[in-house]
Amino acid sequence: MSKTRILTGITTSGTPHLGNYVGAIRPALASAQAADVENFYFLADFHALVKCGDPARVQRSTLEIAATWLACGLDVEKNWFYRQSDIPEIPELTWLLTCVAGKGLLNRAHAYKAAVDRNRAEGEDDDAGVNAGLFMYPVLMAADILIFNANKVPVGRDQIQHIEMARDFGQRFNHLYGEHFVLPEVVIDDNVATLPGLDGRKMSKSYDNTIPLFAPRNELKKLIAGILTDSRAPGERKDTEGSALFQLYQAFASKEETAAFAQAFADGIGWGDAKHKLFERIDAEVAPLREKYEALMAKPAEIEAVLRDGAARLRATHATPTLVRLRSAVGLRDLSTVAVDGDKTEAKKDADALPAFKQYRDADGKFYFKLVQGERVLLQSVGFDSPRDAGQRVAAIKQGEVGDDASDFLLGEGVTSAEVNAALAAFVAAALEGEGGKA
Amino acid sequence: MSKTRILTGITTSGTPHLGNYVGAIRPALASAQAADVENFYFLADFHALVKCGDPARVQRSTLEIAATWLACGLDVEKNWFYRQSDIPEIPELTWLLTCVAGKGLLNRAHAYKAAVDRNRAEGEDDDAGVNAGLFMYPVLMAADILIFNANKVPVGRDQIQHIEMARDFGQRFNHLYGEHFVLPEVVIDDNVATLPGLDGRKMSKSYDNTIPLFAPRNELKKLIAGILTDSRAPGERKDTEGSALFQLYQAFASKEETAAFAQAFADGIGWGDAKHKLFERIDAEVAPLREKYEALMAKPAEIEAVLRDGAARLRATHATPTLVRLRSAVGLRDLSTVAVDGDKTEAKKDADALPAFKQYRDADGKFYFKLVQGERVLLQSVGFDSPRDAGQRVAAIKQGEVGDDASDFLLGEGVTSAEVNAALAAFVAAALEGEGGKA
Repeated sequence: MSKTRILTGITTSGTPHLGNYVGAIRPALASAQAADVENFYFLADFHALVKCGDPARVQRSTLEIAATWLACGLDVEKNWFYRQSDIPEIPELTWLLTCVAGKGLLNRAHAYKAAVDRNRAEGEDDDAGVNAGLFMYPVLMAADILIFNANKVPVGRDQIQHIEMARDFGQRFNHLYGEHFVLPEVVIDDNVATLPGLDGRKMSKSYDNTIPLFAPRNELKKLIAGILTDSRAPGERKDTEGSALFQLYQAFASKEETAAFAQAFADGIGWGDAKHKLFERIDAEVAPLREKYEALMAKPAEIEAVLRDGAARLRATHATPTLVRLRSAVGLRDLSTVAVDGDKTEAKKDADALPAFKQYRDADGKFYFKLVQGERVLLQSVGFDSPRDAGQRVAAIKQGEVGDDASDFLLGEGVTSAEVNAALAAFVAAALEGEGGKA
Repeated sequence: MSKTRILTGITTSGTPHLGNYVGAIRPALASAQAADVENFYFLADFHALVKCGDPARVQRSTLEIAATWLACGLDVEKNWFYRQSDIPEIPELTWLLTCVAGKGLLNRAHAYKAAVDRNRAEGEDDDAGVNAGLFMYPVLMAADILIFNANKVPVGRDQIQHIEMARDFGQRFNHLYGEHFVLPEVVIDDNVATLPGLDGRKMSKSYDNTIPLFAPRNELKKLIAGILTDSRAPGERKDTEGSALFQLYQAFASKEETAAFAQAFADGIGWGDAKHKLFERIDAEVAPLREKYEALMAKPAEIEAVLRDGAARLRATHATPTLVRLRSAVGLRDLSTVAVDGDKTEAKKDADALPAFKQYRDADGKFYFKLVQGERVLLQSVGFDSPRDAGQRVAAIKQGEVGDDASDFLLGEGVTSAEVNAALAAFVAAALEGEGGKA
């Protein structure tokens, strides 16, 4: 069986803070320990250009986020680690997907709609000050995911819609050009805490309430001292409920430590003492990472080399061969494969065409697939109740798991099972080839 | 002085017809003879994906259009000849431009608006069936032009708006990130005839009234025989005005031949004879080209090799170095150039930053430029009445033409003219380097 591919990207427009660490980096690296996964971690610097007009900040942020992943233990031998802009296949695929993406769907993207709502509230034109990057960003994100046929994408709830769009674009492409893309699934981990910031709201760059993950010890202490609390005096009982300080502690502490801290709250610990305990707890986890981070930041050329190496290997084994197949599917093909013998309208004999699965919904509302080679239909499925059922059946067949009875599809007219087997063998071979790179 | 760069692209979605030949190919190759021009001819296959869901047709069309250019005499030693999709820098630049392109401007593109109007007329949602490719196509076209800093783009009147958009996106990029792009100018040649098709309307694939440029002799004869005429009998005087047959003849004939044909119309030539004369005249020009075309079409691998070679040379000398500069401008930079010595917020010392011109409009409504290096202002201009005046002044200064009095700018505070000269030398060097490839 092939490994489950998990993809995680961070936009390179800011300095990593405790919220990024607790909400994304730490859980992503923890789940990387599983044996049956292949992890893709990337620095989303093309995405950073949508909002950030500050080049030095993009560069600086890219370095800081790369150093953070490495300091936190990302093993570049066992995982893919790369910078988005080092994979030219991503913007190329973005254009291919742009040509199948419904504009109407993009109109409904939350981030774009929020910008329109702000403009309306201010009496401006809907699109005043909106750049096309904000509008097209879901297509770029789909390319990030689909170029590697990622199976799972862990995101926050606000990103679910983007994954659904990636599925939609992938599905349209598959429908038009044959089954090329695995449709990604969203992964929401509700156990991952949303960390509060200095003012009690969600820790976020946009609220300017963050605690940088690798702030120097003194600065960390000072920032923690500035966390908002109520004004209860030492000796008075403190509420854990709704306390940013308590939630921050909990995100770094064991169950036992958390229980002890809650008891201290009940016993009326002073805020100064509580903040000191919080600082000590966070610093205990962060200090060894901070030391690595600082050593890494002092050698940016080494980080640059790590990223380039990751991208070069990933392109050679995954991105480039995938894009060759996708280009061919849409018609961007080596001209020497055009048939020139008299037949001026058919580009290729069916027999030379690559077999491809096509999924579609028919007038009866059911979901079907067929296996075609050129104009010829090799297999025709029965109707499935959901696109997911049809897709899973296709995936299984492509893996060679046709099944014993195989009563859910029929051979095309005049098609022999030998022909079908030959066509399917090509898929199994392609699947093995696709896995070879990182084996 | 640098040569004027002229860029011509043809979308690879159909078979070249007489209208393409007379309206685009023949005049483009005629103007290529000038000594002070550098010509860029390309096959716009990424554009073909917007409308065409037929991969074999895209491939076939790409071959046919490439063979047509070559058969008609395009000299690949003296001109750039390439396939758009062989230049990955084009989709990369498309993303960079997407992030500066105003969505509101794209809403007003004619082709997109026409699609919306059709939907409204049919009571559909505005964007029903509209893919994002139709919406974003002006940004791709801007990248086609700006990646090579083309000076002139000959187009039909319906394309003027796209060139204006390319200017707009280029200008916004220059404003944000320094003067990187030459703003292209549209070239409309009103002397180039719009050729009528078989039914008298403009010859166009969408009217299904075309005569393929390289239809075999017999087919050409048959198609010409089918041109619509009025029903006047032989011996009756014929009108040249409004006669598709006459206009087609005129597009291929000398002044003298045209005058003689007009006389024959006045003398009552029969339509059969007139069609025969038209066939002979067109075939006289096309037959030697058709022979070359057929020889070329029989060797698609050679055409593939020509295109790949053109793209490889063009990337090495133009596209790749240009994109390196553009990436650096927006912040997609080698991380080893980040300053790491203590200063954690500034990415680079000013002295290491590349000098850049920035143009802007001030509160007084006038247009200004300044030359900056990092945070430092080296030069500050006086106000100009139009952005064009300011832009031309910047262009001249970049070419080293500062002028004797140079009273239209001031040195920044504490800046010496030696510093300014050093900064300007970098631009002149870059300009020379940019031209080196094809010298």
